[in-house]
Amino acid sequence: MGTEFLKIREVAEVEKILHDLFQMLYSAKKVENVPLDEAGTRVLAEDTFASIDLPPFNRASRDGYAVKAQDTFAATDEKPVILDLLETVEAGTVPKKKVITGQCTEISTGAPLPDGADGLVMVEFTEKIDGKIHIYKRVHHGEFIAHKGTDIGKGDLLLPKGSVLSPDKIGVLSAMGLSEVAVIAKPHVAVISTGNELIESHDELKYGKIYDVNSQSIQSAVKSCGAVPVFGGIVKDNYDNLKTAIENGLQNADMVITSGGTSAGVGDVLRNVLDDMGEVLVHGISIKPGKPTLVANVQDKLVVGLPGYPVAALTIFQVFIEPLLRKMGGSEASLENATMQLPLAERFYSSKGRMQYALVKIIEGQAHAILKDSGAITALAEADGYIKVPKNVEIVQEGSTVEVTLFNRN
Amino acid sequence: MGTEFLKIREVAEVEKILHDLFQMLYSAKKVENVPLDEAGTRVLAEDTFASIDLPPFNRASRDGYAVKAQDTFAATDEKPVILDLLETVEAGTVPKKKVITGQCTEISTGAPLPDGADGLVMVEFTEKIDGKIHIYKRVHHGEFIAHKGTDIGKGDLLLPKGSVLSPDKIGVLSAMGLSEVAVIAKPHVAVISTGNELIESHDELKYGKIYDVNSQSIQSAVKSCGAVPVFGGIVKDNYDNLKTAIENGLQNADMVITSGGTSAGVGDVLRNVLDDMGEVLVHGISIKPGKPTLVANVQDKLVVGLPGYPVAALTIFQVFIEPLLRKMGGSEASLENATMQLPLAERFYSSKGRMQYALVKIIEGQAHAILKDSGAITALAEADGYIKVPKNVEIVQEGSTVEVTLFNRN
Repeated sequence: MGTEFLKIREVAEVEKILHDLFQMLYSAKKVENVPLDEAGTRVLAEDTFASIDLPPFNRASRDGYAVKAQDTFAATDEKPVILDLLETVEAGTVPKKKVITGQCTEISTGAPLPDGADGLVMVEFTEKIDGKIHIYKRVHHGEFIAHKGTDIGKGDLLLPKGSVLSPDKIGVLSAMGLSEVAVIAKPHVAVISTGNELIESHDELKYGKIYDVNSQSIQSAVKSCGAVPVFGGIVKDNYDNLKTAIENGLQNADMVITSGGTSAGVGDVLRNVLDDMGEVLVHGISIKPGKPTLVANVQDKLVVGLPGYPVAALTIFQVFIEPLLRKMGGSEASLENATMQLPLAERFYSSKGRMQYALVKIIEGQAHAILKDSGAITALAEADGYIKVPKNVEIVQEGSTVEVTLFNRN
Repeated sequence: MGTEFLKIREVAEVEKILHDLFQMLYSAKKVENVPLDEAGTRVLAEDTFASIDLPPFNRASRDGYAVKAQDTFAATDEKPVILDLLETVEAGTVPKKKVITGQCTEISTGAPLPDGADGLVMVEFTEKIDGKIHIYKRVHHGEFIAHKGTDIGKGDLLLPKGSVLSPDKIGVLSAMGLSEVAVIAKPHVAVISTGNELIESHDELKYGKIYDVNSQSIQSAVKSCGAVPVFGGIVKDNYDNLKTAIENGLQNADMVITSGGTSAGVGDVLRNVLDDMGEVLVHGISIKPGKPTLVANVQDKLVVGLPGYPVAALTIFQVFIEPLLRKMGGSEASLENATMQLPLAERFYSSKGRMQYALVKIIEGQAHAILKDSGAITALAEADGYIKVPKNVEIVQEGSTVEVTLFNRN
């Protein structure tokens, strides 16, 4: 009844195949320009150099009086130096007069220092009496002045390629007056559901049909990796429809993910389509759930056939596809899913001979395995994450510490 | 020269004031309906109950033959039971005939079980010979049938209020055929920059002016909390402009954040505006950087005046405002910024008498304090996060373990 599975491959073999494929197909990063106010969380595509000096001029870093420092050297608490007031310079305005010996200019934080001045006396140590300024403290040369280009000089490296544009980095770029920035392009992923029984949310639920789950859950998972899902529709399990949907997906996206129609059974159409369009590299993984997974290279793009059952489809996505998408988007490993070390609440019997990813729910600091098959939607409703049970482990004892990979909530 | 600071308040006092204000102003959550494909990462606003049975009908969970289980009780490897084939039912189609003793129906995974059948023999244990089906294994009553409503029954609780809509939960909702869902509304935050020296990115950099940093960095920080920034413009430091901008902000948003114009100096306009419009609760926090921060209740909305210096503005945002915004959006504490325990690379001298938030850069597993003042943009370019130094600590020794709060990259 239809084509047999290829040789079932181990998880590590599949990871190696995907890694090599990734290197071959996706290691050259696409770049796109985005407006700065949409650049948050993106990854800088190029070393970015300062296009201006910061500060762009000698700037007062306190409110006070710009002076010739030397004029203040005799000033004390008891015996002020008295200076003539030339003018007042607020931030955003420009000094008109040069300060010479015996003179000062009232100045606000952020305002440009007038010519001739080389020090600033904080307002707290002054007094204005009859229009003259009494200075009660000596200041040294350069005090409370941020000199032009001392924060960063024009042409200096501002942010290196690969920087994640967190709010502070966005601030740094806006200090240059940039309104857009070159970032690594988000990968686009076509998401296709297959199955004659599947209907969309706006359709009436007729006998024998079910609402499709995977197109929504996989699209959401694609987004959670910082990629862009491109919905390729719910297609019937027949050769021509599936081929057309994959062709469209290849045109509109960097990668195509289908779900359903991967079993070596009645609905074996996908395997045949992929054999004709390109090269099937994996058909069958020693993993539970998710065994009937397909991986193919079609027109130098990755096509992944996920199983139809929602739990299996999401598991395979998270284990194999999510790391690739994050890497394509330029992210580092630090953005991988969080894990927790927790005691297992009850003894767990694993599937013999296959690596098992078992859904768990966390209750009062303990991990409870969810003992439902991969067709059960409520398993997903309850799950907080999953544990990995190696293929040679058949029993995980109650109370032993397990590593729970938490579902991505980004 | 202008109004004095109010009594300087301790960090814990300000947290208490904000907490109480939050309870009073924002504890009632706003709810909005969003399309399911935009609901990822959002927080479910209501307990959601199953609107249909799942599965919606008795469903085959394997490819094989639907039978009367009793007909197979005599079947063995050597001596098959032979049944007549009634019809073939693919997933998505409907059985037309009732199975009676001596008959079976070929059935695909996901297809509805025909009337009369109460068990399923997997295709692996059958053979089709001359149109008849040879059964080599007995099945028990109900085997490989997912009965209607056993995954979840119509009216049962599907997902509780407060669930974060990760991809798996999106899948659960789509199994119900939902196309939209009620989630907690994203808080809207008006972001206003003040300062006569500030210009926008598309403006020409004239002498005495600088590009505004805070409108971009604070808007990006607002987004990183799952809230929606509403840009309220760069306004001049004068009473009428500022008042108008805040009035607009209050109309368009749930909260208003300004930056600049908070010092008890020349540019003290904001304090006067807020005194006239509402009640100033905090003016001055015992924290470095960020001392000249204003907190006010205006028309039952929170107005926060951040300092003008970018490092100070972001620090105060992250310490005091980010937790409030996350709570308004319905998030749990688990979404707070990640922290790392790291050795401090060099001895650090803290500011006496004020809680200090010191920017650090992580190099080879050690935290290096960035010794630049809060006016320096490059401090932000280099920083990976910050450490907190309590007000009574003056020196943090080289090699001691510090907790680094990493900047949010969401």
